[in-house]
Amino acid sequence: MFITFEGVEGCGKSTQIDRLAHYLKDRGLDVVVTREPGGTPVGEAIRTILLDPDHTSMSPMTEVLLYAASRAQHVDQVIRPALDRGAIVISDRFADSTTAYQGAARQLGVDLISQVHSMATRRVWPDLTLVLDLDPRIGMQRVVEKRALDRLEHEPMDFHDAVRESFVLLAGLEPERMKIVDADRPLEEVEADIRALVEEALATA
Amino acid sequence: MFITFEGVEGCGKSTQIDRLAHYLKDRGLDVVVTREPGGTPVGEAIRTILLDPDHTSMSPMTEVLLYAASRAQHVDQVIRPALDRGAIVISDRFADSTTAYQGAARQLGVDLISQVHSMATRRVWPDLTLVLDLDPRIGMQRVVEKRALDRLEHEPMDFHDAVRESFVLLAGLEPERMKIVDADRPLEEVEADIRALVEEALATA
Repeated sequence: MFITFEGVEGCGKSTQIDRLAHYLKDRGLDVVVTREPGGTPVGEAIRTILLDPDHTSMSPMTEVLLYAASRAQHVDQVIRPALDRGAIVISDRFADSTTAYQGAARQLGVDLISQVHSMATRRVWPDLTLVLDLDPRIGMQRVVEKRALDRLEHEPMDFHDAVRESFVLLAGLEPERMKIVDADRPLEEVEADIRALVEEALATA
Repeated sequence: MFITFEGVEGCGKSTQIDRLAHYLKDRGLDVVVTREPGGTPVGEAIRTILLDPDHTSMSPMTEVLLYAASRAQHVDQVIRPALDRGAIVISDRFADSTTAYQGAARQLGVDLISQVHSMATRRVWPDLTLVLDLDPRIGMQRVVEKRALDRLEHEPMDFHDAVRESFVLLAGLEPERMKIVDADRPLEEVEADIRALVEEALATA
């Protein structure tokens, strides 16, 4: 089973992934936790380029191709081998982030995004996607308190609003796979909802 | 006018580009010399990933997407602006290298390469391409004498043979744009041929 977490910056993905992974591992399951961009040595090198705040001149096409390159490596080297051996793979972001960030917020268009997904994923696709929905103003506030902003976090608030709206829209188009979880609540409540959704998916898998 | 140089490793592109650029600049022309992968700060960072001999696990799809990302940035930030102001742009490698290295030698297929070209170049295409044709054994010998090999140079000789054959094949398909220059001759003879071909292209442009 392939589970992905999506959402705006600061929505709490890492914490929730950490908790879910512990919960599933405690049940004796083989769990692989990974992230995008990154997840492999080549992918982490690409991540450094993508998030470097000095790369202000990066064009939208370059950006989408770099995310795709990182994803192709991630699929080939980590995700597909883990799924093939029967592991549960949990990824912090995957293809839906490209649809939301580059497709919707950067307005690169549906056809291009579809081509890019086809190249990068070659049909490896999430069984369950948890969208941690949060007002990006709250998310960014959380990020600012913890560390310096990366290149994408430096985008204006209407960019992040477009990303959030796009995730909600995508979930509406694929309600079976993509579940919206209200992330503007105490950690434990969010965690309980996520656990219930994963249990349901595991039961029907 | 957009001029590109192609060929196997060690075929003498850099030297000939340097000489051609000086020749054209001496005639008072606005000349921009650049290279791929690279040519921009983001592109040079991508180049480092691509050529790093430690990245032995890089998948062919990741590789082609990284070259495309570098090219998209190169087109947007360097090539198109220079062509728009009327400069002569000379690039050490461009899209034909992707066709030869990733399309033919890595066997990624014509359709994929065509999609990648469309994304990376958005119709910025060379007016003249000079293929410096050389037995890769001779080229690699020249490289080995000068410096450590990069990731692609570490490929076996049949890979480099496939690259060479692909350039010759491509030139056969587009004889107006792509000119084969025998690079297994003294520098000055190669230089004279290149100069004549560029003069001819400038005269008919």
